[in-house]
Amino acid sequence: MLLSPSSIHVTKWSRAEFIFSISNNPKHFTSTWMVATFKNGNINKTVRGFYDDDGRFILRFMPQQEGNWEFITQSNIDELNNIEGSVYCEAASQEETGPVERDAIYHFKYANGKTYYPFGTTAYVWNHQSDDIQKKTLASLENSPFNKIRMCVFPKHYTYNFKEPERFAFPGNIEDGFDFSRFDCVFFRQLESQIDELKRRGIEADLIIFHPYDRWGFSQMDEEIDSRYVEYLVARLSSFSNIWWSLANEFDLLKEKTMSFWDTRIKQISKEDPYGHLMSIHNWHTPPLHYTNNDHWYDHHSNLLTHASIQHHDLWFVPGWRNEYSKPIVIDECRYEGNIDCGWGCITAQKMVNLFWEGVCAGGYVTHGESYLSDDDIIWWSHGGVLKGESTPRIAFLRSILEEGSSKRLFPKRIQKNAQWDTLIGHMGDDYLLVWLGENQPAFKWLAMLPEGKSYYIDIIDSWNMTITRLPETYKMGDKLALPGKTGIALRMTLVNQ
Amino acid sequence: MLLSPSSIHVTKWSRAEFIFSISNNPKHFTSTWMVATFKNGNINKTVRGFYDDDGRFILRFMPQQEGNWEFITQSNIDELNNIEGSVYCEAASQEETGPVERDAIYHFKYANGKTYYPFGTTAYVWNHQSDDIQKKTLASLENSPFNKIRMCVFPKHYTYNFKEPERFAFPGNIEDGFDFSRFDCVFFRQLESQIDELKRRGIEADLIIFHPYDRWGFSQMDEEIDSRYVEYLVARLSSFSNIWWSLANEFDLLKEKTMSFWDTRIKQISKEDPYGHLMSIHNWHTPPLHYTNNDHWYDHHSNLLTHASIQHHDLWFVPGWRNEYSKPIVIDECRYEGNIDCGWGCITAQKMVNLFWEGVCAGGYVTHGESYLSDDDIIWWSHGGVLKGESTPRIAFLRSILEEGSSKRLFPKRIQKNAQWDTLIGHMGDDYLLVWLGENQPAFKWLAMLPEGKSYYIDIIDSWNMTITRLPETYKMGDKLALPGKTGIALRMTLVNQ
Repeated sequence: MLLSPSSIHVTKWSRAEFIFSISNNPKHFTSTWMVATFKNGNINKTVRGFYDDDGRFILRFMPQQEGNWEFITQSNIDELNNIEGSVYCEAASQEETGPVERDAIYHFKYANGKTYYPFGTTAYVWNHQSDDIQKKTLASLENSPFNKIRMCVFPKHYTYNFKEPERFAFPGNIEDGFDFSRFDCVFFRQLESQIDELKRRGIEADLIIFHPYDRWGFSQMDEEIDSRYVEYLVARLSSFSNIWWSLANEFDLLKEKTMSFWDTRIKQISKEDPYGHLMSIHNWHTPPLHYTNNDHWYDHHSNLLTHASIQHHDLWFVPGWRNEYSKPIVIDECRYEGNIDCGWGCITAQKMVNLFWEGVCAGGYVTHGESYLSDDDIIWWSHGGVLKGESTPRIAFLRSILEEGSSKRLFPKRIQKNAQWDTLIGHMGDDYLLVWLGENQPAFKWLAMLPEGKSYYIDIIDSWNMTITRLPETYKMGDKLALPGKTGIALRMTLVNQ
Repeated sequence: MLLSPSSIHVTKWSRAEFIFSISNNPKHFTSTWMVATFKNGNINKTVRGFYDDDGRFILRFMPQQEGNWEFITQSNIDELNNIEGSVYCEAASQEETGPVERDAIYHFKYANGKTYYPFGTTAYVWNHQSDDIQKKTLASLENSPFNKIRMCVFPKHYTYNFKEPERFAFPGNIEDGFDFSRFDCVFFRQLESQIDELKRRGIEADLIIFHPYDRWGFSQMDEEIDSRYVEYLVARLSSFSNIWWSLANEFDLLKEKTMSFWDTRIKQISKEDPYGHLMSIHNWHTPPLHYTNNDHWYDHHSNLLTHASIQHHDLWFVPGWRNEYSKPIVIDECRYEGNIDCGWGCITAQKMVNLFWEGVCAGGYVTHGESYLSDDDIIWWSHGGVLKGESTPRIAFLRSILEEGSSKRLFPKRIQKNAQWDTLIGHMGDDYLLVWLGENQPAFKWLAMLPEGKSYYIDIIDSWNMTITRLPETYKMGDKLALPGKTGIALRMTLVNQ
């Protein structure tokens, strides 16, 4: 029986929800299925419903086109079969951007056409912390440049992560074990509320479905349970416009799972998600001698993966990965600003800022993380809380430079001429060049990177002090440009329109 | 006719020189040869003489064993054939170390047994500069930590290097061309005097035989001339105890020369040099995607190469190269401290210091260079002159740490435990560990790198401020060590003898 009205009005990219009443029986988690076909003119979408416990079955839908969507359900039980309804989709508000999608091979945009530059951060299990910490995390995010967050469904077992969370995706606890034939719908409702809180702040939820840091058994479930878990997750969450699917963090540390397991899960999500949300899988191992390693990297050539989510400390390789994979390159871990004892968690703020600039000028995107020791062992990288690092305002500064003016789809370029290969340039044809001098300290440069016969305005950007100084003259190819002779300098070169 | 006495007394590893008078005819450069066989008990050495112009033929010998060495000459002209003589070799003085040779697979020692840690610098054509600059160079070297210098026989044509030198290995000049059938012996005597000046200051001359930076034609001579040039160079210079043969700088930029050319030259030197001086060949290309590249790297596996002379900016690979080549790894260019416009010449002093520590703790050795702009365009990297950089005293500090106490043959080690793979450790078994935290800033470390069941003294070394602070307690494996939480920190761990 359909409890909610059979016709709902929503705006584009928001969520319509239909609630069906059935018998209160946990067997529905494993034995009952329902899908609905939504139709709007020639467009068809098949959407899976899910059992929400307590005799409630739910069907959610995110319309991507305006107009009337009629649906009819199919199910293996009579109470959910052949039920009809509709969603009337109105125009989105000005603020509503819709989901992020791939754009121009190497980049992203929102569904409403607005450019999206991923400036991600990482707080793996902020959603498993106390209400107080969650509030702090959301407040920190609100005042930060970050518009994507990597976060896990499952809790994390790892150094600095030994507190027991209150709830899990499955009912149970570590002492008594878990009931993998059910889901804990209170947990899922919390997760949904957290994802909605992110959405309100313009933040994409890069949701990590599996990970290896585990003392509860969630990394070693039977494949049947893994499959049901993925199906359930997608049924509950794909109608959230800000969801991204990250198959795993450091997938190659999940030693029991084979490459064919990941193939199957990726295909499953692709089939189950009617909206084609962004999807990726993130590696652990960064081979020292080669830039990719088939044993440890999932094959990012796969058409089902929308972008390459890479862990690597050397962003020199970004242009190579772009060429190799022909999709956006997102460095979803390049070590974290901080001072803890782990190799991945003690780089300086300057280094983090350098990595962001390097990644962006190489035509990729970089994800932030922070791991400063604290008295209460609340560390941003895992728990969220309060951002303390000095890189955050500088990352905001870089984001403001990218977002200023017209959309910037940077292509990477290195120039050999005059041994200027240390200079990393992101360019948009001849119109705009963003030149990163990084950790070098040249006192001047010959402007070998400019196209011939054209004049440019040049801004000297100090990435650390966050200043932009427009030079009074204009410059041409071959001119000599005096520089501050210190590290962390970028140059913005804008074509003079004649 | 032998002009000098037929019997000469010298100390071990110094140079005996016999001068023969023949007709004054430049044809001797191409048509006349003479070799002498030196005998001392069971030891035989075949040594080539050379024409020194003006009717002088010279035979030089560096005895490596004490006692009486008798020789007899062979030649294709009667005046130089069947001449007998002897060298009486006395014990070396305390200060005389003899030539540097390989030791303990990955390291070096002097022939007298003293450990030699290469702390090289680079001033490619200091020997082609004015007398005034040459004096400044020698004075700078005398007060520096550097005990090896990379320098070229031929002058250099390159940015900041456009002045015409006075003399060349061949008589002639750029306007009128060069006579490749002769050698300019005034030039060679100057070169010898320069090498001796280095020797007086305890500096090895890593002599670069070929290089690509050329406007005179020395990089494109016929192979017959190349071969005669190499033979002549070895005949003149192999008796200099501080000579090292560097076949080329950036050999892979000498596009006309094939790999088999280099094979032949390496074999030729190996055959012609009776003393087996150190020999290497140095690459240009540092492939971005692989740590070696067969197209661009000469095969350092060759037994005739005593060490791998590598250009690379990433010393992370040093342990891999050690394993691969089973010989000493000398990073003979990792970019230079400075502020010029070239990618290789604008790193900070901090970065240069970091590279030295990283190389040494990885069980390799690193070569310095400096390229600060100056009003007179005299830049250390090429011309010598005055050292200005801030890395030099810090490199001296590192050298003093290595040279303190017993000989240190460091083996590299990285530890995965507790994610401490960012920590690079050079160790000598359980006795001594030199731990480099590099550009990281951890506030503490778990001492996972110490062998179990042993106690250690720990010194906190600040590589930039050049301080060494001995901690009052001793430490064991698994202890927590508080750290300054800044970059450039090293730890020296010394076994407590019980």
